[in-house]
Amino acid sequence: MFDLIVIGMGPGGYEAVLTALRKKLSVAIVEKSKLGGNCLNRACIPTKYLRSGAHTIEKLSKIKNYGINVENYSIDYKTAFESKEKAIGFLRKSLEQLLKSKKVPVFNGKGKIVGKNQVEVKYPDGKTEVIEGKNIIIATGSYPASVGKLNPDGKYIITTEDYMERLDTLPESMLVVGGGVAGCEIGYIAKIYGCNIYITELQDRLLPSQIISPEISKNLLKKFNSIGIKTFFNTTVEDFLIENEKINVKLSNGETITVDKILLTIGRKPNTNDIDTIGIEKDEKGFIKVNQHLQTNFENIYAIGDVVNSPMLAHIASYEAKIVLNNITSSEKKSPDYTLTPWAIFSGYEIGHVGLNEEMAKQQGMEVVSGYYPFMYNEKAVDELDSEGYVRLYFEKESKKIIGVDVVGIGASEIIHQIATFIKEGYTASDVHEFIYFHPSLSEIFAYASYDVAVGKLF
Amino acid sequence: MFDLIVIGMGPGGYEAVLTALRKKLSVAIVEKSKLGGNCLNRACIPTKYLRSGAHTIEKLSKIKNYGINVENYSIDYKTAFESKEKAIGFLRKSLEQLLKSKKVPVFNGKGKIVGKNQVEVKYPDGKTEVIEGKNIIIATGSYPASVGKLNPDGKYIITTEDYMERLDTLPESMLVVGGGVAGCEIGYIAKIYGCNIYITELQDRLLPSQIISPEISKNLLKKFNSIGIKTFFNTTVEDFLIENEKINVKLSNGETITVDKILLTIGRKPNTNDIDTIGIEKDEKGFIKVNQHLQTNFENIYAIGDVVNSPMLAHIASYEAKIVLNNITSSEKKSPDYTLTPWAIFSGYEIGHVGLNEEMAKQQGMEVVSGYYPFMYNEKAVDELDSEGYVRLYFEKESKKIIGVDVVGIGASEIIHQIATFIKEGYTASDVHEFIYFHPSLSEIFAYASYDVAVGKLF
Repeated sequence: MFDLIVIGMGPGGYEAVLTALRKKLSVAIVEKSKLGGNCLNRACIPTKYLRSGAHTIEKLSKIKNYGINVENYSIDYKTAFESKEKAIGFLRKSLEQLLKSKKVPVFNGKGKIVGKNQVEVKYPDGKTEVIEGKNIIIATGSYPASVGKLNPDGKYIITTEDYMERLDTLPESMLVVGGGVAGCEIGYIAKIYGCNIYITELQDRLLPSQIISPEISKNLLKKFNSIGIKTFFNTTVEDFLIENEKINVKLSNGETITVDKILLTIGRKPNTNDIDTIGIEKDEKGFIKVNQHLQTNFENIYAIGDVVNSPMLAHIASYEAKIVLNNITSSEKKSPDYTLTPWAIFSGYEIGHVGLNEEMAKQQGMEVVSGYYPFMYNEKAVDELDSEGYVRLYFEKESKKIIGVDVVGIGASEIIHQIATFIKEGYTASDVHEFIYFHPSLSEIFAYASYDVAVGKLF
Repeated sequence: MFDLIVIGMGPGGYEAVLTALRKKLSVAIVEKSKLGGNCLNRACIPTKYLRSGAHTIEKLSKIKNYGINVENYSIDYKTAFESKEKAIGFLRKSLEQLLKSKKVPVFNGKGKIVGKNQVEVKYPDGKTEVIEGKNIIIATGSYPASVGKLNPDGKYIITTEDYMERLDTLPESMLVVGGGVAGCEIGYIAKIYGCNIYITELQDRLLPSQIISPEISKNLLKKFNSIGIKTFFNTTVEDFLIENEKINVKLSNGETITVDKILLTIGRKPNTNDIDTIGIEKDEKGFIKVNQHLQTNFENIYAIGDVVNSPMLAHIASYEAKIVLNNITSSEKKSPDYTLTPWAIFSGYEIGHVGLNEEMAKQQGMEVVSGYYPFMYNEKAVDELDSEGYVRLYFEKESKKIIGVDVVGIGASEIIHQIATFIKEGYTASDVHEFIYFHPSLSEIFAYASYDVAVGKLF
């Protein structure tokens, strides 16, 4: 009997295994597809690879300022797609080799929990095998949702996974259904690489989430307009007709567009169908119910990542994995705390957020004061020829304690982390302002964005 | 009488003025040269601009991985130099306009303190004027040192300021005397832009400073070797002869080289000659003596930045400015604490450090354990095609509290800031490991670099 069986080898499962090995547990893996899960193979990592490519293409027009005269260049999406596969392949191979060197058994089939300590592995050829574990972690992730008549067929109507894993050549035009994170990320990439992009969004703005301030949506929309992405808000797909390899789409606003493909980016659903035969409890959306220690209704069976109702983020899956491994091996149980979850989006701008924004704070009955500074005057951003965007810091009005940050622009996904610690430690605007930041750095923008609140206004 | 007179408008003086204005003080500026000081006009900002250019040139060979086929390009240093001047000009203009809009008088001459409350301004035409202030801040910065026979002549033997402000065309070859920060930064830039570079260093490694671990020096040397920078350690310039517009240099190791220019990067000296007639106390190196509140021997006269014996860094000058402005306006006096000063170097690699490294900790009688992780397996670095380098975290062995960090590679100058806060708040290896970092991010490398110490070794 293994100490631990992990079903699903995405970022949650991977972290669980790594930690288990360091804690000297015997561990087995059940994975029906590629090691690394969606994150590595079809989502986070390939998206950021291609986004770096798109951002580099945009920057090409500026580097003459560095005395670099690019006389001629061409863009070839297929090469980008293939190089991305190579990069991912290298990372997946590293993971494979690590597991091999630690002699971790990997059962390449679909896992189903058939007893408190039993996982049945069903192989592609239909054969099955049952393995036993003292503890089991369900980390099977999620799959792309579909909506109405829009059922993915892999050719005309595709998912984000089709896009990232299989679409090695861009169509001439594509309708992205959904203006959330995935839609804004892939829409931007495809547009810059030469595909004509339309985005429909049910709500009235891009990135319609409480986490994202309307100010961010407005800035991103301006950028999308400037690069020629066409957006339709408060709009759905009413109907469509495929004719001569083209899709004629009728939108709910009465307009009609013709595209080559439709990309669905309307959220994800937990991979929990058929996960067990023993009655593991789920909520009405299919998420596995867990207690504060991430245990299911069976105390030795845990669930982490996209299968539980916490933020659907890779780093939350790995955070939960660490907590579960602590709870398996220690009598001092830990519980997850999601309040300082960092968010980042890589689209026309790099966008970062942590903590509360104005609306979230108001909903908690808090009075808010904010501080703003544009990257335009940040010397490091100027040096990098990348000085669009801004930082907004949020403070509780009375105490002037920092409660959150929005960053739009260069470095957003990195510099938010220091603010997470500032929030955790109860730093005031003065603490943020007087902290010693390297000069010139992007991070020092926080000293300027906190100036008004910490010291007083200039104008 | 002004509330405050600031002599010198570099990053220290600028911060002092900005803070004074926000605190509603009346303030006057005395500056003999350009607003922004060395940092903006001749050091930090232009260096990072040109370094971004050099790094971009190096990256050009990799971007075919993004499907960007650059068929032809040429490098023109003069354009880079001129664009850099434009970028700096924009920043300086913004500063000028800000001061104008706040009606801050700027006296464009050399300041000399001639009374406890009197500053004499000497204009370029020889005329003088005396202005009066309740408080005075000396923020006159520093100038490049020379050594032995090597006296800057602006043509053959140049300073870093000559290089940044005037050298708009690169020579064929240049000897950089000094392998410290400025030598490694400018040497790298000039090499990548096409100049043949030699570096002589008195000590046995690049960046010979206690702050810089030998491991960092070793990595940078490897990089310099790979791009063809020739280094001479334990070596000085014994003699030189200028003939036919070439300099024949005899080195102390017996070798002879011929170059077009010699760049001196052997440190800086405080601009304190002739600063006063009233007996402001200085140490034997010319640094102005200040107490823990940054007051000179005259309680209303303060000194900040390169003129005092603290780390010669722009952000330390502005940090000290904030402290002085507090001390001028509040009865609760503050004192500077330099222990968490962030250091960053932009050369063949971006390098960052904060806190203690192994040698510094040992000198304090501390036992150290460290954790290492290479960027090679950091997914974000892989996505950015920039995965050379590593992170090393230092912990006190017994408590496992984090005490310092070295970063070599992408994002070094930014991600060190979160570690500064971790150190300040007494975080342990487990705290560093369990912190929620965005995935994929460069910052999450800290979770991996702390894994061994926090959880246990894998191998």
